[in-house]
Amino acid sequence: MASGEFDVIAELRCRFPLVGDDAAVVPAPAGPLLLAADAVVEDVDFVLDPSGAGLEDAGYRAVAVNVSDVAAMGGRPFHLLVSIAAPEGVDVVRVVDGVEEAARAFGCEVAGGDLSATSGPLVVSIAITGTVADGGRPVRRSGARAGDGLFVTGPLGGAAAAWYRDRPSPRVAEGEAARLAGATSMIDVSDGLGADLGHLCDASGVGVDVDVDAVPLAAGATLAQALSGGDDYELLFTLPEGARPPAGSVRIGTIVTDRTHRPPSEGDGWQHRFS
Amino acid sequence: MASGEFDVIAELRCRFPLVGDDAAVVPAPAGPLLLAADAVVEDVDFVLDPSGAGLEDAGYRAVAVNVSDVAAMGGRPFHLLVSIAAPEGVDVVRVVDGVEEAARAFGCEVAGGDLSATSGPLVVSIAITGTVADGGRPVRRSGARAGDGLFVTGPLGGAAAAWYRDRPSPRVAEGEAARLAGATSMIDVSDGLGADLGHLCDASGVGVDVDVDAVPLAAGATLAQALSGGDDYELLFTLPEGARPPAGSVRIGTIVTDRTHRPPSEGDGWQHRFS
Repeated sequence: MASGEFDVIAELRCRFPLVGDDAAVVPAPAGPLLLAADAVVEDVDFVLDPSGAGLEDAGYRAVAVNVSDVAAMGGRPFHLLVSIAAPEGVDVVRVVDGVEEAARAFGCEVAGGDLSATSGPLVVSIAITGTVADGGRPVRRSGARAGDGLFVTGPLGGAAAAWYRDRPSPRVAEGEAARLAGATSMIDVSDGLGADLGHLCDASGVGVDVDVDAVPLAAGATLAQALSGGDDYELLFTLPEGARPPAGSVRIGTIVTDRTHRPPSEGDGWQHRFS
Repeated sequence: MASGEFDVIAELRCRFPLVGDDAAVVPAPAGPLLLAADAVVEDVDFVLDPSGAGLEDAGYRAVAVNVSDVAAMGGRPFHLLVSIAAPEGVDVVRVVDGVEEAARAFGCEVAGGDLSATSGPLVVSIAITGTVADGGRPVRRSGARAGDGLFVTGPLGGAAAAWYRDRPSPRVAEGEAARLAGATSMIDVSDGLGADLGHLCDASGVGVDVDVDAVPLAAGATLAQALSGGDDYELLFTLPEGARPPAGSVRIGTIVTDRTHRPPSEGDGWQHRFS
């Protein structure tokens, strides 16, 4: 079915009641507003079958990685803005199906977006807004202090062991539980434990002693995959000594003053390269 | 200079203090929140010189088209989220230079974003938040009523006459003035007067009588270019009979009940095609 941009947009307006004006009008949250954006690119972040299988997964994935950014602040996803640059022949509506399914799964709403033609691979760029429930404060990367325990919400390395997961599962409930438990810092594991824990330590100006034997491994995953494989979307967070960790989280180390105590792998995780 | 994603991100953190966590934390506005997103794609929305000339313009353009969406609601731009998918060899920092220049020009702030590699053309996807000053209400497309006057903020067809403008000028002040004057509906002219006025009439459930002799033409532009050429970013708005139009705006018609009274050109303006 050939369809013009306006036809696709007309369909989006039917599905997403907020879409239709030059900008959507939504109520501002009572507390602070969280803002993030992440794009997924064909053949970099996902692959498509020649039949187009995977279009829904691409849309779902683009939402999920954004929701994970909000989860890592201890927040809840609120609204999504979806920009799709699609080559000729791609059924954009199937990408939107995946976006819609993920929006429903994670309790957020599509507020607007954009459709463009491109001569290149499919690019799904999503921006997300988030809120923090109950007047709470978002958890940043920069609050870890020496003596804090380091925790992870679940097993790592699963995505690397399976090359990648079609549908990442952001840990919204776990992030909120960590915030309510008194988390001093938090980050999602999108680039690998080594890289992301390094970001957390850098932002906080601290070092870390990781008990590698305590790192929970996903089924079939090696420690190396847990340390340097990305795309897991578990959350790393720190709690002051004595705070009660949320159910299901596992302590894997301790924050220390000495910044030369780095995560066990100094690998960069997955890093796109520009020249 | 070869630079990894993390190097570019480190530079962005220096430039944009809000960038650095998984999500930025910003104060929520007192009134409603405006949300929109628009992407620009190389060879569709802009062209690059083989030397890379135009990278800054691409970043500037991506911001400007988003700011125009907020202007069309009578709002003010607040924050930007910037996702860049760049092929190897593209100096992403120059794209960011253009984004930063536009952000400064239009009084908004970069709150986050994402950098991805792509095998295809450069894609700059921006999402924008906006506010409405003084506790006012955003102006939608859907509020035009029979008897309202139809106005445009300035001359049309200039972009079509020049093929396109490198740096569109969104009409933020004009949009706010139209809102304060009591505008009942508003839209920006991104796809051409015919197409965008058609959207406004459809959303409002009305028709329109346009006085084509009154349509202000940009220097060198024909009436056909004004009617069907896109990329002008002037604003179309309606005012109740008797309301005082803002300085500089030009009345070009009247809203009527009969929906079969369509804009003078039924052209679709510029429409990307998907199959």
